[in-house]
Order: sequence, then C-alpha cells, then structure tokens
Amino acid sequence: MSDVLTISQVNELNYEDFIGRFGNVIEHCSICAAVVWRFRPFHDVHHLHQEICSFVDLLPDTGKEGVLRLLPDLTGRLAELGRLTQESAAEQKAAGLDTMTPEEKQLLKDTNAKYRDKFGFPFVICARQNKKEAILKGIVERLEHSAAEELNIGIEEVK
Amino acid sequence: MSDVLTISQVNELNYEDFIGRFGNVIEHCSICAAVVWRFRPFHDVHHLHQEICSFVDLLPDTGKEGVLRLLPDLTGRLAELGRLTQESAAEQKAAGLDTMTPEEKQLLKDTNAKYRDKFGFPFVICARQNKKEAILKGIVERLEHSAAEELNIGIEEVK
Repeated sequence: MSDVLTISQVNELNYEDFIGRFGNVIEHCSICAAVVWRFRPFHDVHHLHQEICSFVDLLPDTGKEGVLRLLPDLTGRLAELGRLTQESAAEQKAAGLDTMTPEEKQLLKDTNAKYRDKFGFPFVICARQNKKEAILKGIVERLEHSAAEELNIGIEEVK
Repeated sequence: MSDVLTISQVNELNYEDFIGRFGNVIEHCSICAAVVWRFRPFHDVHHLHQEICSFVDLLPDTGKEGVLRLLPDLTGRLAELGRLTQESAAEQKAAGLDTMTPEEKQLLKDTNAKYRDKFGFPFVICARQNKKEAILKGIVERLEHSAAEELNIGIEEVK
C-alpha cells in the first residue's frame, strides 16, 4: 500500500489501521480520529477534514485549550528537533526555523514563554505557511490579544 | 519520587510530567489530562477526578463515542494480554478473565463483536469491579439496549 491513500483505501481501513494513520492528524490528539471514524465512508479528503473541524468546534473551550496544549511547543522544542514528529520537523525546516540566528531564537524563546504564561497554552502558528519573520512578528503581536481571541486563532491554525 | 504521588506533588508537576503521569488516565485519551491541567492546583484526588468527569460530560455525543472507541476492546485483545496497558491487564486478571474456559471466551468474543457492530464502539465495563460471570451476563443484557443508553452506561463505567 503506497504512502498516500486514496479515499477508497481510507474508507476500507479497519479501525486500528485508521487510528494508526489518522491518530496524529491533530498531534497527540487521537480522540479526533476516533470520533470521525463514525462518519465513514468519506466522500473525499475535504469531508474527512470537515468532520474533524466540526468536532473541534463542538468542544467546550477547555477542550479547545486541551487540543492546543497537546501540540508540540514551537520553541521549547527547537533544541530537540529530533523529537518532533516528522511532519513538524519538516514544517519547521520549511519555515526557516532551523536557520534562525541565536538572537532570533532567544527572542522567539522569550516571547513564547511569555505567551504560554499569559494564556496557559502554547503559541500555535502554521509553520508551513509562515516564514520565520512572520512567525516572530506574529507572536509579538498576538501576545497582546485576549485569551478568547488567541484560543480562536490557535484553533483556526490547527484546522 | 514514589509511585503514588501526594496531591501536592501532583500540583508541582510541570506540564510534561503531568501528561506523562495522567495522559492515560482515560486510556489513550490524552486530551483529558491536557484539559484538566488548567484546573490546578487540585484540592485532592476527587477534585482531579471531578474535573475529568466534567470535561467528559461536556463532550458532544460523538466525542463520548470517541472516548469509548479509544479504550482497549475487552475481548479483541484477550488473546494479546501483553499489549494491554499494565492497568488493564491487572484488571482483567482480577476479574478472572485470564481463567475463562474456551466456551466462555467464545461467548464473550461473539457477543462483544455483535455489540461493537450494533453500537459502533466497544463494550465497556469496569473489570476491576466485576467478575467474569457478571461481565458475561452484562454484555448479553446490554446488547438489547439503545445506542443512547449504552453511550451513557459506557461513559459512566469510564468515569
């Protein structure tokens, strides 16, 4: 079976294989895959994505916070790239995070710590869609937001 | 640090150690631990338990189903006791599940498969509080319930 499944192949997976494939679709949050299992067969990948988003939207705010808290912390783990899931490591590389200067790393680390202290969940931004300059600018600006705003932004980034 | 923590020790854990300790408090459902992290400090173990239950109660029905679906299947894994988490294996032994006759195992296996087909989630019963006779009787009776009834019963057993 190739690495990328067709939607028919996805629909034919048994539960264990489905969880094996999609248990980490939102990182470390396997309940999302367990929930959307009930919506098979999926018409296409957008249908699968939509059901995951719908479940996340239905979570109480404490649950949304939990989703964010399960994600790998952007900077806390910069020093341990090897421990990130493969997808995250590739994303961080694409964003140029592996080429940050020591000063940029320190700024990101300090701001990230402030963010986490203020909101109680990690700063989440799609590294795949943002270069390091946008990430640094983003975290400084977003630190000024309210917790409710950041919960929404973080969840949208996840989706 | 001893194996059993005092509530003060729990309250002093950093996030990673907290998830390491409680990420499996509902099996394979790490979001529960990530959610209740925000409610520290806990007054006592009942407070911690109560916050987990409150979160599970707030889940939409699809989420409750997901919680049940993440649990190890009672009989599907009878043959692979070694792969169960340590807690589950000890529970199953206490319930006498390791001493079932081949006929009892077959009955449990067949009824369990029917249950899963009917409801779309596994039969959940607290093996720690039930002996094998009660489990066999329970599954046959509960197979007659509606999905809504079983979702509630399953979640209560989890809690």
